[in-house]
Amino acid sequence: MTLRARNAIVDAEIVVGYDTYIELIDELLTGKTVVGTGMMQEIERCQVAVDHAAEGRKVAVVSSGDPGIYGMAGLVLELAMKLPADERPDTEVIPGVSAVGAAAAILGAPLMHDFAVISLSDLLTPWEIIQKRVEMAVAGDFVIALYNPKSTKRVKHIEEVRNIALRHRAAQTPVGIVQQATRKGETKVISNLADFTKESIDMFSLVIIGNSQSYVKDGCIITPRGYII
Amino acid sequence: MTLRARNAIVDAEIVVGYDTYIELIDELLTGKTVVGTGMMQEIERCQVAVDHAAEGRKVAVVSSGDPGIYGMAGLVLELAMKLPADERPDTEVIPGVSAVGAAAAILGAPLMHDFAVISLSDLLTPWEIIQKRVEMAVAGDFVIALYNPKSTKRVKHIEEVRNIALRHRAAQTPVGIVQQATRKGETKVISNLADFTKESIDMFSLVIIGNSQSYVKDGCIITPRGYII
Repeated sequence: MTLRARNAIVDAEIVVGYDTYIELIDELLTGKTVVGTGMMQEIERCQVAVDHAAEGRKVAVVSSGDPGIYGMAGLVLELAMKLPADERPDTEVIPGVSAVGAAAAILGAPLMHDFAVISLSDLLTPWEIIQKRVEMAVAGDFVIALYNPKSTKRVKHIEEVRNIALRHRAAQTPVGIVQQATRKGETKVISNLADFTKESIDMFSLVIIGNSQSYVKDGCIITPRGYII
Repeated sequence: MTLRARNAIVDAEIVVGYDTYIELIDELLTGKTVVGTGMMQEIERCQVAVDHAAEGRKVAVVSSGDPGIYGMAGLVLELAMKLPADERPDTEVIPGVSAVGAAAAILGAPLMHDFAVISLSDLLTPWEIIQKRVEMAVAGDFVIALYNPKSTKRVKHIEEVRNIALRHRAAQTPVGIVQQATRKGETKVISNLADFTKESIDMFSLVIIGNSQSYVKDGCIITPRGYII
């Protein structure tokens, strides 16, 4: 967590967030009103936050990772923008350490060259669009970072990604899988494009597929930037 | 800066980095050996860091943003890996708030959907590869973040990116330009695909081109995630 994010939470009267993330900042919440998940979904939770802010209360909505990368920043802004300009609360997005950056650091230095970030969740995005993006990212030789790679109900998408990638990249292309990055229970696996879907992958995993230059040495995935050394 | 990064700098005996970044952490450096830029280039500087670490000294190499995203993490690991395993120092990459995440937060919430990160610097990468990546990212309807968009010597690449993007995306597609994100002199401009190259852009700028769904409201670029609200 950054000092700036910590200060924003400390300054807030009301803290809103998914229960799992609220628990991680328990020590900062004394005396504050906390709006956890309960029965509420993401939209309702963010609406509560915007409503309180519109009434002049200081509200912090917490996300894990970077709230601007598949986090709550967009939904909060979208809901705030629905209010008339004179009722709209001031908003500020405080960037954080992204899950992809945290996972990359655990794996070594896989993101040292151009990369694409894709969520495989088809709850809000049609699979055809996701698939097209995977195809373009593979064709462009991007390092590819996958959010929400697999869920209990959705197990085939990651296999399709593997098949698409194998059309352009070597079977030995490094693939890293990080679960619970920087949290209790963190695990790291380094595999390759041919075999990585045999490893344990779930919604809390982040998968990073190397580009044509990426290599593995001493437990690290490294994507060279191009320096002659 | 994260608490973890701060602690690592405080714990180090030797701090190595580009002068500009060293100045930003001046207050943490009392009593430490500081290896700034001087006459040294990136490779030499990281080699000094690895050499000291191999001798058993505690060294911190500082990058701006996230060291794992176009930062020094890769070069340090590459140099460390050149040493025989029994002489190789322990290394740890500490992730940070990436420049792309910081710029996105300043612009609102442009990265709420799949995105591609591309450096336009052709010092270490042939322009043909960069151009291909831009084409694929545009075709995949990725939000596109550009690092090193322009330098005094290299002014045409950004125009070529604009021309490629205009083949697939509307002239009114939002484009955000952030200079000196989170530093003194920070500026933010919101423009569109047709006009953004008329704005001031340099090596310290980060440019974010929206996808087909991105919109501008009340000074923010928002890329909807797909929630029905």
